[in-house]
Amino acid sequence: MNITEIGRALRRGAISAGELADTAIRRTRELNPTLNAFALIDDQGAAAAARAADEQLAAGIDLGPLHGVPVAVKDLIDLAGLPTTCGSAASFGGIATEDAEVVRRLREAGAVIIGKTTLHEFAYGATGDRSVHGASRNPHDPSRMSGGSSGGSAVAVAAGMVPLALGTDTAGSVRVPAALCGVVGFKPAYDAISSAGVYPLAPSLDHVGVFAATSEDALIGYRALSDIAPPAAAGEHPSVGWIPSIAATDSRIEKLTRELVNRVFDVEVVDGFSKWELFEAFSALQGKEAFEVHKHHLAADEDLIDPEVLARLHKGRAISDRRYAQAEIVRDELLVKVGELLSIYDVLALPTVPFVAPPIGDRSVSVDGTDLEVRSALLSLTSPWNMTGSPAISVPAGRLDGLPIAVQLVTAPGNEALLFAAARALETTKY
Amino acid sequence: MNITEIGRALRRGAISAGELADTAIRRTRELNPTLNAFALIDDQGAAAAARAADEQLAAGIDLGPLHGVPVAVKDLIDLAGLPTTCGSAASFGGIATEDAEVVRRLREAGAVIIGKTTLHEFAYGATGDRSVHGASRNPHDPSRMSGGSSGGSAVAVAAGMVPLALGTDTAGSVRVPAALCGVVGFKPAYDAISSAGVYPLAPSLDHVGVFAATSEDALIGYRALSDIAPPAAAGEHPSVGWIPSIAATDSRIEKLTRELVNRVFDVEVVDGFSKWELFEAFSALQGKEAFEVHKHHLAADEDLIDPEVLARLHKGRAISDRRYAQAEIVRDELLVKVGELLSIYDVLALPTVPFVAPPIGDRSVSVDGTDLEVRSALLSLTSPWNMTGSPAISVPAGRLDGLPIAVQLVTAPGNEALLFAAARALETTKY
Repeated sequence: MNITEIGRALRRGAISAGELADTAIRRTRELNPTLNAFALIDDQGAAAAARAADEQLAAGIDLGPLHGVPVAVKDLIDLAGLPTTCGSAASFGGIATEDAEVVRRLREAGAVIIGKTTLHEFAYGATGDRSVHGASRNPHDPSRMSGGSSGGSAVAVAAGMVPLALGTDTAGSVRVPAALCGVVGFKPAYDAISSAGVYPLAPSLDHVGVFAATSEDALIGYRALSDIAPPAAAGEHPSVGWIPSIAATDSRIEKLTRELVNRVFDVEVVDGFSKWELFEAFSALQGKEAFEVHKHHLAADEDLIDPEVLARLHKGRAISDRRYAQAEIVRDELLVKVGELLSIYDVLALPTVPFVAPPIGDRSVSVDGTDLEVRSALLSLTSPWNMTGSPAISVPAGRLDGLPIAVQLVTAPGNEALLFAAARALETTKY
Repeated sequence: MNITEIGRALRRGAISAGELADTAIRRTRELNPTLNAFALIDDQGAAAAARAADEQLAAGIDLGPLHGVPVAVKDLIDLAGLPTTCGSAASFGGIATEDAEVVRRLREAGAVIIGKTTLHEFAYGATGDRSVHGASRNPHDPSRMSGGSSGGSAVAVAAGMVPLALGTDTAGSVRVPAALCGVVGFKPAYDAISSAGVYPLAPSLDHVGVFAATSEDALIGYRALSDIAPPAAAGEHPSVGWIPSIAATDSRIEKLTRELVNRVFDVEVVDGFSKWELFEAFSALQGKEAFEVHKHHLAADEDLIDPEVLARLHKGRAISDRRYAQAEIVRDELLVKVGELLSIYDVLALPTVPFVAPPIGDRSVSVDGTDLEVRSALLSLTSPWNMTGSPAISVPAGRLDGLPIAVQLVTAPGNEALLFAAARALETTKY
């Protein structure tokens, strides 16, 4: 059932919020030993919220489409009264005293939070396999990566534990696991969703985003979290520019996704992206900011942080102010270029991830005969849209080798109704 | 300040429970990055409990000696509304719905629980250096082991974060870290303190116990937790039998502790322990029981459990029913022998640990030229008293190479007043 169907069943009394929460928690408990989507299941909190939701509906109070709907939240988002682990042994020690703003809004919308999802430690990794809670696992093949960093939230939706989950996206951490797990992942415009009470990774690049089975459900989630979300997907079909080859991509994925987009839209091919070292600039911005966020505790917590994550954090120390400033220039140039393109096209399209989910732990992947470093390659098609702060959505686009592949759609802030229209048009097309 | 002094200051208004809790939490936050005693600090829970304690005192309600006193609890003991991690990534996922019985009693006594302490994963290790929260560290030298498994509770008391902490002791997990950190650790008679709501390791050997700076404070804690605790230490000095060489012990520790005991009591030397392979029998009992406790999740959680802990758990699988039965026979023989001795002597005395705290991570220690395996050797002098279920207390006995050493005192159930009298007599003697 999608969120709208759940809402109808609730309101005609076919099911209660309590039953929905119980079912979600039962399914989560059943699958979690295999998939490791959840770091914490909040039986009591969920039961209390569901009871309140049922009582309100019985009393004629209707809080809207999320009323009574089970939701999961990435475990770097504060829930009052529970620890926020950020997937790290180094983040143990405290209990959140207040709800994050997004949690406050979820509760206000009547959502029933059933627990907190696993993430790559400190949200600093796209593989989703380095966490104090262990790797989150792909429901299509548990020996493969969920992707990350919001891996648990993607898995929770993909495995049908919850219809909606929250994540964060600094370089692709919502869109990448959504693509690898075969669900929709939406990252809004920069600052469109409040990040108050959300543990930062790189503040100028961080976005809170949502996972759902469909773009329609993602939009419902987005509307609950943001005042600037569009009321609905637009009625018309958008104009689409296809961006080829920002970074090395499996030619079969490039072909399949492009064919799909061509089948739905009148598409023009756009170029001019290959001239930049976009990922190098991105890494400078992210690396320096992440080091600034974490430097206060690195020495004390060295033993507690995964060696790979720790090495990445330490690398940020070496990024000079000059290199950061040069990266800012690349970011500005990219903003101008993307602004130009989005004055011509409503939406830009490209694959979300250049290959299908690799086996957990793998750090090298062969793409058309070239060996790529998994961690950076996973983010090579998504991170540019964190630099620009553009709304972007990943939509499932069929399978390759039995595993999900996905198309990414990007638009200009303010144009989200057309982005969701494009996503919906893709979803309703046979692969 | 000891617990009695804290109580006096509270009741004459020189300090409030709120100030005590704030001070404890401030000190904990300051030292925890170095010592890693706490897995979770519960600011809000502590503030609420302290407020209630102050209001009750103001209203003339006095709950006794723990009223308003900050206390820490090992993180395998349930606190309602918080996760119980057991120091393991494999134990994430749930939130305790009820307080453990010991927590209920602490709250009833007006204690202010400020947080949960780190432990060796699943309480299955005396080194205190394998935990999802990282190693707890010895306040006398943070490069050295705290001992375990209740390492965080020992450190919390030794570093002056709290005057009282709860632990569990299956083979020495209270007494060993108490000895290595230089505080008092008391394990009562089997079942004298309820283990409801406490995650088990080996049910026929598990005991809940307490840490404090002095035996007097330990007795105050014990009295709050058990209905069969004596009202006070006995007035007279007990008769003492010294047990030499149950297991290989640094000859300097043997000498120093025996001299101390000789200085305080009329001591006779007892023998007849060397004939048993006590630790082998103990390991069979513990190993089989621990495997029974954990077997349901070992396959699913393999990736999440520390390899050393996992290997120890798997070893339990190989212990046959016959070997377990043979170990039970050794246990019965030991019970008879100890029963005989404790009909002659009030108290038996021996060192608590055969060497001072080794460096964190070390698994071999040289004792008088012989290399011992650290993990089993740490428990070689304490685990017999888990087999017999005898009340036993570890009391600081000075230093060797700048690190704490300790005497262990053992008595028969029902004779605890004399045990505490002996402990007190030792404490008040100059080393």
